Amino acid sequence: MWLIGARGSVATTVVAGCAALAAGLHEPTGMVTETAAFADVPLPPLASLVFGGHDITSCPLPKRAEQLAAGGVLPHGLPRSVHAELAAADVEIRPGGPQPGDTRDDEALTAAFAADLRAFRRTHGLDRVVVINVASTEPGPGPGSGSGDDRLPASSLYALAALRAGCPYVNFTPSTGLHHPLLRDMARCSGLPYAGRDGKTGQTLLRSALAPMLAQRALNVRAWSGTNLLGGGDGAALADPAAAAAKNAGKAAVLRDTLGELPSGELHIDNVPALGDWKTAWDHVAVDGFLGSRVILQTIWQGCDSALAAPLVLDLARLVAAAHAAGLSGPLPGLGFYFKDPDNGPAALSDQYTALTTTFATQLREAQR
Amino acid sequence: MWLIGARGSVATTVVAGCAALAAGLHEPTGMVTETAAFADVPLPPLASLVFGGHDITSCPLPKRAEQLAAGGVLPHGLPRSVHAELAAADVEIRPGGPQPGDTRDDEALTAAFAADLRAFRRTHGLDRVVVINVASTEPGPGPGSGSGDDRLPASSLYALAALRAGCPYVNFTPSTGLHHPLLRDMARCSGLPYAGRDGKTGQTLLRSALAPMLAQRALNVRAWSGTNLLGGGDGAALADPAAAAAKNAGKAAVLRDTLGELPSGELHIDNVPALGDWKTAWDHVAVDGFLGSRVILQTIWQGCDSALAAPLVLDLARLVAAAHAAGLSGPLPGLGFYFKDPDNGPAALSDQYTALTTTFATQLREAQR
Amino acid sequence: MWLIGARGSVATTVVAGCAALAAGLHEPTGMVTETAAFADVPLPPLASLVFGGHDITSCPLPKRAEQLAAGGVLPHGLPRSVHAELAAADVEIRPGGPQPGDTRDDEALTAAFAADLRAFRRTHGLDRVVVINVASTEPGPGPGSGSGDDRLPASSLYALAALRAGCPYVNFTPSTGLHHPLLRDMARCSGLPYAGRDGKTGQTLLRSALAPMLAQRALNVRAWSGTNLLGGGDGAALADPAAAAAKNAGKAAVLRDTLGELPSGELHIDNVPALGDWKTAWDHVAVDGFLGSRVILQTIWQGCDSALAAPLVLDLARLVAAAHAAGLSGPLPGLGFYFKDPDNGPAALSDQYTALTTTFATQLREAQR
Amino acid sequence: MWLIGARGSVATTVVAGCAALAAGLHEPTGMVTETAAFADVPLPPLASLVFGGHDITSCPLPKRAEQLAAGGVLPHGLPRSVHAELAAADVEIRPGGPQPGDTRDDEALTAAFAADLRAFRRTHGLDRVVVINVASTEPGPGPGSGSGDDRLPASSLYALAALRAGCPYVNFTPSTGLHHPLLRDMARCSGLPYAGRDGKTGQTLLRSALAPMLAQRALNVRAWSGTNLLGGGDGAALADPAAAAAKNAGKAAVLRDTLGELPSGELHIDNVPALGDWKTAWDHVAVDGFLGSRVILQTIWQGCDSALAAPLVLDLARLVAAAHAAGLSGPLPGLGFYFKDPDNGPAALSDQYTALTTTFATQLREAQR
Repeated sequence: MWLIGARGSVATTVVAGCAALAAGLHEPTGMVTETAAFADVPLPPLASLVFGGHDITSCPLPKRAEQLAAGGVLPHGLPRSVHAELAAADVEIRPGGPQPGDTRDDEALTAAFAADLRAFRRTHGLDRVVVINVASTEPGPGPGSGSGDDRLPASSLYALAALRAGCPYVNFTPSTGLHHPLLRDMARCSGLPYAGRDGKTGQTLLRSALAPMLAQRALNVRAWSGTNLLGGGDGAALADPAAAAAKNAGKAAVLRDTLGELPSGELHIDNVPALGDWKTAWDHVAVDGFLGSRVILQTIWQGCDSALAAPLVLDLARLVAAAHAAGLSGPLPGLGFYFKDPDNGPAALSDQYTALTTTFATQLREAQR
Repeated sequence: MWLIGARGSVATTVVAGCAALAAGLHEPTGMVTETAAFADVPLPPLASLVFGGHDITSCPLPKRAEQLAAGGVLPHGLPRSVHAELAAADVEIRPGGPQPGDTRDDEALTAAFAADLRAFRRTHGLDRVVVINVASTEPGPGPGSGSGDDRLPASSLYALAALRAGCPYVNFTPSTGLHHPLLRDMARCSGLPYAGRDGKTGQTLLRSALAPMLAQRALNVRAWSGTNLLGGGDGAALADPAAAAAKNAGKAAVLRDTLGELPSGELHIDNVPALGDWKTAWDHVAVDGFLGSRVILQTIWQGCDSALAAPLVLDLARLVAAAHAAGLSGPLPGLGFYFKDPDNGPAALSDQYTALTTTFATQLREAQR
Repeated sequence: MWLIGARGSVATTVVAGCAALAAGLHEPTGMVTETAAFADVPLPPLASLVFGGHDITSCPLPKRAEQLAAGGVLPHGLPRSVHAELAAADVEIRPGGPQPGDTRDDEALTAAFAADLRAFRRTHGLDRVVVINVASTEPGPGPGSGSGDDRLPASSLYALAALRAGCPYVNFTPSTGLHHPLLRDMARCSGLPYAGRDGKTGQTLLRSALAPMLAQRALNVRAWSGTNLLGGGDGAALADPAAAAAKNAGKAAVLRDTLGELPSGELHIDNVPALGDWKTAWDHVAVDGFLGSRVILQTIWQGCDSALAAPLVLDLARLVAAAHAAGLSGPLPGLGFYFKDPDNGPAALSDQYTALTTTFATQLREAQR
Repeated sequence: MWLIGARGSVATTVVAGCAALAAGLHEPTGMVTETAAFADVPLPPLASLVFGGHDITSCPLPKRAEQLAAGGVLPHGLPRSVHAELAAADVEIRPGGPQPGDTRDDEALTAAFAADLRAFRRTHGLDRVVVINVASTEPGPGPGSGSGDDRLPASSLYALAALRAGCPYVNFTPSTGLHHPLLRDMARCSGLPYAGRDGKTGQTLLRSALAPMLAQRALNVRAWSGTNLLGGGDGAALADPAAAAAKNAGKAAVLRDTLGELPSGELHIDNVPALGDWKTAWDHVAVDGFLGSRVILQTIWQGCDSALAAPLVLDLARLVAAAHAAGLSGPLPGLGFYFKDPDNGPAALSDQYTALTTTFATQLREAQR
């Protein structure tokens, strides 16, 4: 498992959490791949996963884990219990890019990243390496993009490196990744499975459960408004309007696809550093019911971003690895359950769950035989 | 359509709303039977429905409708627009019972109610009469029930009368109705279709969408607490602890059936007369996620009870009528979508929707051929 | 009482409400001047008030009132009960400006408005005319203002006309009004009392009660975030970022003045047409308590904008009229209770209430003797 | 400072927190006695305080502190930093009572407690000992109390012991304490200052700020409903209806005293063990405004009970000690700021703050001269 953004909160929680589960220190709460639905699906065991990744910062993983525990994100005492695993993963983190002042062009960067992936696979004698982007959201292709700047965004360089090195790829962020016009065809012809984008961890998860409920009841959603408050690295990244726009596009897609049309209403993402890794999402839905009678639904979701994301990232790594082993390639619509902006597949959460645990799990089971 | 509690807010909204839709004054928002999913299912047209019912109060329906419009429950001006239909239904309302001081025994009451149903069917030359209980919740079989009092609750008398008169029966309330030990077998042998109980209009609707979401994500629901505030007749009725207990049993069933076990947490139903027909439900869900990380979900649902119930009542009348026409009998698990405490069938809302719009709709379509 | 924006929702509610109270149809809920605190203060009786105003639209007041009743803003039946008073006020509404294509310059407009005020006072033989701005918020002096456009904003033209005609002036909106560099000195030398600006009707009212609570408890407010949803004319006006900026400045002032410094956190004002005149404000306050322990306070305020504003407007008209009669002039810090952005005076609501009901009321009482 | 319930969460947070502040490890957030308002009031310095107390459990304070840190109640690492101070206080904790199977009568228990207090004062050569009850809420004097059981509740035995030993007394809980018919006169004649009861840490704090706001705006509060969710020891204690009734009486008093009459609406206190020491309070206030227009205010307060209480307990200990030194006696209405159910004094929080920081602080300052 190769993490882009390997020193971030999500990646640190993934590495520490996988070690804690493998050691039996915690129940695998939040991991669908550990439920009965995947009982006899051939997934790589958690204890067999090896971690590495790219990052542009240098804080060692054990120290990052201590910081997260001090902020209440990781359980007290866990960083010490899994220190060895954190240190082992830290050794396998390579410098990302482009860094400020980096003189390498896109080709040089991609080649370097792909070489890192191949070396990691070879050194550890791995069957395969799944690359997962959990880095901070990068600004989207804003109005000025393209004019005079024909470089690929960093997320696409990493995605391209994954294709070159023959690695399945998952984009857990709203960054561009494989969703770049220059990469789309290459991805489809790569023979590799991939999935994305933008993990569905909070407000959009709720929306993908509640919007179908309102649609099934034939209610008329007039406006769906929302505000997200979050600190941490993601809060700062999303304070950039272009980055927020990328994220909001995914959130809107869920409403449009389940309600038939996008209701009015704005969606705000505010950086609130005082909240640290804890995020809060408030939604206000104005509905017209029978004879135009007003119904108001409000939801408040509070959780720790990294802890919401980490079990999904572990699920995805295992599922995409199994898909690769099973010879599947191209986008995996069976994984829409995990994403705000998936590649095809149904939009309602319950249908996505069925697609994951029935169709997709069956594919993996059958490939084994 | 024969309404038990025919002068209540729900019944008045049903009669006025049906007339408004038949006249094209409003869109059929909130009615699933008017969506594409039921396009070619042989349902009785709204304009063909004839209304009557039992009640123990005497306020005329047109006047009740004016009261509801003054409280913002019905649209301004609607009572005048559908005055003729309200007056026509008012003529067909017969005295319910037992009234205070009533000397008739259960047998006499049941016989009188059944005679009312037969007369209604005959007078109007109806194919069938669907009996729907929308009366205020009656106290449940509390600790002292049974001891020294072997009379049936009123809701069961009406249900028994429906069986005797050969009428399909729907229980939209948490009252006992057919769920009485003495009636259960009789219902199963009646050759009639029936459905219930306790319409799912607000908090439980939400729970049946959100509990599956949390279960599918393999999250650990530690406590689900809730408070309902409502005024109107239902608020007063549910201030009685025994009546509230009946309602709460249905609400708990949804959580137990979708989460695997009932989480801790209490559920309060408070009578707040100042809210009138508007109800508010607050839910607080404490969840353990990955590595024990805390997630809190809170929901607030505000709506007008009658307007939430009325389209479901109209849907049910049409669906049960069609089931009767199609020769179906016994409990209808395909209608679990509408109830807190349905007879079998799935517990998750999305599965209930599929059962309704696929299995059940297909049954009705095929019976037609 | 002369209302700028005389055909708007607030003005219509003011005229209809004053008539309803004078006729004894409703209790004077929401009016501080009708409480015991003002028992023997010489205020003009509600029944003595005469209404006129400026507006640029033409919908007659009785019709506006019918629209508001249909939307649930005014009580059912009230427009008919007070039709005569609405029609009488309608006769006294003069065209505002500048209208699109208006060729009059600032001087000509101001002169016309002042003439309207003098004619109104003369025709009705009034002791005095209080001018109150309740028009939609106009864009504030944005980044581009001033450059090439040296005209006064419309709100300032009306304010200037009031000064010229010798009328006390109240600015209930965040628009510029007398807060223009060119008018400030003129106002102070006019010998007239005036007050403003921006009525405190919802979220800021709450903040002016809650921020002092947190400060008095020596808690450390780290972030105060908020979102306002509103439709109606004000929602549309505030969708303009410059208009919203004017409003937000007032809201921020309350936090800065009561907490000592402005906490981080954004404030959004979203136009949600589906909400009509009903507005919703959500606030999320992240607080550090003892030993850094986190406290979260969230508030949700739902109300009808016009009904929240109208009693304050009636209070202000009476209080400023009494101040004029008492010979007071200049800004009235005793009225800070009503405003987001008052002229001096305390910032905490309870202190503002004391200033209003003690100091200011005493001034008015003593002037009488 | 002598804590009844000395091994509980609140007491542990008080001891650890006082040590942390004295050592300069944290800012004194939440302590009013550390603000400018008390700049030159002669209060005992935090570093001078000596801790002891009664408890019926035996878990050592350093271990309790570790448990609280693991639950996120105390900062990570703090228990180790202040281990010496926790251990020192632990040595001074004496067995409380009556314990199960205790054969001592009220007189024997009281005498033993008073002896403990005198010994503590003597051993450490203290000027005075302030006794503060922070034990779990005991069941109130329910309907059956008095009949056949003429023993004093435990909280009253401790209070009586304080009087006998000449110690000022503070009741931070809703338990009876000095509010017993047999103790009332004794307290008044004791020449000692005392204060209580039931610390105002969350929902009631909010209510004492918001109810005055609504009253000052002349709005008509129709119903005030609320639900509290809490785990920990207090959640379990308050699951007892009699204990909850005692607490609710104080909460209702705030509304009645500030609104003029008690609005309708229920108040629930639910034990939710999964929440641990974190409590959540939801309030729903239905208000009638101008012309009967509806306003709804909802608040959600989330915080850690011990961290909310501890700074108030430290404030109270210092203030009551200073009052004793200044020769004040009897109930201290200047401390109503801290209590749900204070002895006289104003009910609105802002007035209580003024009474504390002006009248009371001045008394203490003047006594010094």
